[in-house]
Amino acid sequence: MTDWPILHEYAASGNCYKIRLTAAFLDLPIERREYDIMKGETRTADFLAHVNANGRIPVLQVGERFLPESNAACFWLAEGTHLVPHDRFDRADMLRWMFFEQYNHEPNIATLRFWMGWVGERNLTDLQRAQIPAKQEAGRAALALMDEHLAKQDWLAGHALSLADVALYAYTHVAEDSGLFVLSETPAVERWIARIEAEPGFAAMSA
Amino acid sequence: MTDWPILHEYAASGNCYKIRLTAAFLDLPIERREYDIMKGETRTADFLAHVNANGRIPVLQVGERFLPESNAACFWLAEGTHLVPHDRFDRADMLRWMFFEQYNHEPNIATLRFWMGWVGERNLTDLQRAQIPAKQEAGRAALALMDEHLAKQDWLAGHALSLADVALYAYTHVAEDSGLFVLSETPAVERWIARIEAEPGFAAMSA
Repeated sequence: MTDWPILHEYAASGNCYKIRLTAAFLDLPIERREYDIMKGETRTADFLAHVNANGRIPVLQVGERFLPESNAACFWLAEGTHLVPHDRFDRADMLRWMFFEQYNHEPNIATLRFWMGWVGERNLTDLQRAQIPAKQEAGRAALALMDEHLAKQDWLAGHALSLADVALYAYTHVAEDSGLFVLSETPAVERWIARIEAEPGFAAMSA
Repeated sequence: MTDWPILHEYAASGNCYKIRLTAAFLDLPIERREYDIMKGETRTADFLAHVNANGRIPVLQVGERFLPESNAACFWLAEGTHLVPHDRFDRADMLRWMFFEQYNHEPNIATLRFWMGWVGERNLTDLQRAQIPAKQEAGRAALALMDEHLAKQDWLAGHALSLADVALYAYTHVAEDSGLFVLSETPAVERWIARIEAEPGFAAMSA
């Protein structure tokens, strides 16, 4: 037993990586517990009853309490640190980008990465295959919006690295995995990726 | 000119209503500015340049700054009030339900309400029509997860009404508008709806 938070995760998931990256930037220890989502290990009766009734990872366990939703787990780890802006508006603006991530970015860019790279295009259902063009277009629009914003300022919210950058970095830097996005089309996003990777404490997804 | 925050909105949108309901519970004045999304009034060059490059409402304007994303706007209004739990874990858990709302609830329950009640089933694209069964199933799963949770506790996060309840109330209480959800199947959700409507300061969506 340890007093460290336990991350219930699948390491290749960008949503899980966000939490590890937050912990790395803050130099906080976390214990990692791996589940193979491709084998249904987060849909077992035990997982649903004790870790997350929603059957999804990541979940951050703090003592006997369980916190699903990657961005909420990042917030729990980082509240009161330099990864959360001090200014009230900037703090809400950080959350604005994190909600954008879950609504406009993840369902397109992360889902296409999973479909093309994990499930495999030939194994998709007809309905999934029919959604690819719309998800590609919506994912491009999300990257273009980030690019327009990052052409004007170094960080998504406030004047320094925040959870907004961590949350959006996770699936942006591997967006090309699906074969459906080209990051050189969004040069301000590419420069922002390099800025994040140069920050003290940065840890790669594979670490 | 006023010093009150300005809500750029479409009144029938649950995402906009969340912000009005937060302000009502906190007895905060806001100025309302209406756009007809059915006439494309949030896609004009002026709106995209000055209010939200993402072309979406709601946006909360605070002085000369603009805050998109409904749940971020609620957070800006409510931080430090009784609508945000004092306990650190409960506060992150509140955000957990707000991210769940944007990822698991809104894209299914709100989207079907919009498609069936505003666009009209006959005007949907083939791809939209093909997505109805999956969105209905995912929306039911979201309501079932809330029901299981609310059978054990009165409020979604912590021990009192919070932004988590406000955010999820907005589209839950009108879920039946699409004709695809039946709230009596989730009795704990029904009791929770009644609890919210009995709280001091509550304001109806049509108010």
